[in-house]
Amino acid sequence: MSKPLILVSNDDGITSRGIRVLVNVMQRLGDVVVVAPDGPQSGTGHAITIGNTLRLTEEEIFEDVIAYKSSGTPADCVKLAKFHVLKDRKPDLIVSGINHGSNTSISVLYSGTMSAAIEGAIEGYPSIGFSLCDFSAQADFSHTEEWVYKIAKQVLENGMPKGVALNVNFPPKRHDPIKGIKICRQARAKWQEEFEERFDPNGRRYFWLAGNFVNFDKGEDNDEWAIANNYASIVPCQFDLTAHHAISQLSDDWNWEELKQ
Amino acid sequence: MSKPLILVSNDDGITSRGIRVLVNVMQRLGDVVVVAPDGPQSGTGHAITIGNTLRLTEEEIFEDVIAYKSSGTPADCVKLAKFHVLKDRKPDLIVSGINHGSNTSISVLYSGTMSAAIEGAIEGYPSIGFSLCDFSAQADFSHTEEWVYKIAKQVLENGMPKGVALNVNFPPKRHDPIKGIKICRQARAKWQEEFEERFDPNGRRYFWLAGNFVNFDKGEDNDEWAIANNYASIVPCQFDLTAHHAISQLSDDWNWEELKQ
Repeated sequence: MSKPLILVSNDDGITSRGIRVLVNVMQRLGDVVVVAPDGPQSGTGHAITIGNTLRLTEEEIFEDVIAYKSSGTPADCVKLAKFHVLKDRKPDLIVSGINHGSNTSISVLYSGTMSAAIEGAIEGYPSIGFSLCDFSAQADFSHTEEWVYKIAKQVLENGMPKGVALNVNFPPKRHDPIKGIKICRQARAKWQEEFEERFDPNGRRYFWLAGNFVNFDKGEDNDEWAIANNYASIVPCQFDLTAHHAISQLSDDWNWEELKQ
Repeated sequence: MSKPLILVSNDDGITSRGIRVLVNVMQRLGDVVVVAPDGPQSGTGHAITIGNTLRLTEEEIFEDVIAYKSSGTPADCVKLAKFHVLKDRKPDLIVSGINHGSNTSISVLYSGTMSAAIEGAIEGYPSIGFSLCDFSAQADFSHTEEWVYKIAKQVLENGMPKGVALNVNFPPKRHDPIKGIKICRQARAKWQEEFEERFDPNGRRYFWLAGNFVNFDKGEDNDEWAIANNYASIVPCQFDLTAHHAISQLSDDWNWEELKQ
């Protein structure tokens, strides 16, 4: 039987350390093809490139791996891979990461890592985004490798619920090993923005986005709890944003007489 | 009683025709403040600006309206508005658009228009994204104005379900008037990408993203059906991406013996 074909992307760029770890682990499971941004794209959300051109260049970066870098976003990379690089052979799995930094809770919306995985899910491929809750460029990924392998293997063997991508986060390297896996929901939390106001050499004002993560969630079934308690968190994510419970609420609350033509 | 304060943003940029229509309608409902991108940001998804500076400049663009343009994304604009422009008075409503082009179905993920509205919802403000299913710069918005007014008025009067933003789409101007409003779910559809391969004057390859919208949905309770049948569609959207139904499925399907530490 032929080995599974695994597409790897990320949002930190093709030269980041996290994607190298992910490529190495995926080579134990199948044939690997990389299509990833040519530079950092953190916070790019589910952006795609409209009204601008896209570059796609093959590069020898990883041993025994076909790799392309692109000027596009992570979502562009998956689209380009599907359309061009993998036009003759469909991937069995799409993985993205390993991100340098947490993508738990509300951060999933801003995450380029997860946009590649969600783009994969839209196309019907089993897709996983992996993130390490450590933002440093020199973060230690060693404790995540066996978990990445095991999770990807489960997905290759069992497939994935339709319309779903996995958002996997790992706790930072601590003294104790990771305790296990929690399949959970997205924690209720948000970023409390702070902007730092500065002035350029010409006296013109500019801002830097900063902010603090604020967790409102008291539950134990969410990703923030899992990470805080040294578990890897897995949140199944969907791209149908419909708040189904709100459909009837709006129908009840609104004054439909006023809303007639 | 003081008039409600309404924050207006968009993703086509502060000089687009759609935002001017929206500002005019909102002035009938309250005091208006605009914070919008200084240029087009279509397809920007829920991107935010990390690792780069943000400009924010007050501009006299609209009569009797405080307006700022920003170098940031729509989500940045809402964050900057909250932190800086509206730090002394909270908005009663956040509206985004009117987008030049459809944001129905899966397009909500790629939409900068909706990212501003969803950012507003994350912050707990009633928030609405408006889009016209006509991509042309010279699109006719005249048939949408009364509906924009009525919908915003309902939201100001009745509030919004928690954690929800409205994705409102209007059909293009047709011979017959808009029939009414359908509150519906996001249609199951996707973009079938095509990339056009070209070569620059130096012989280096580049791509343009193109694509066709493919609607798989046979139902009549979704936004694509509503637009095709000359209704305005309203999809309540949530920012909790958890696929709750998949949590138990993964727990059942996976081999947890193999996933032990």
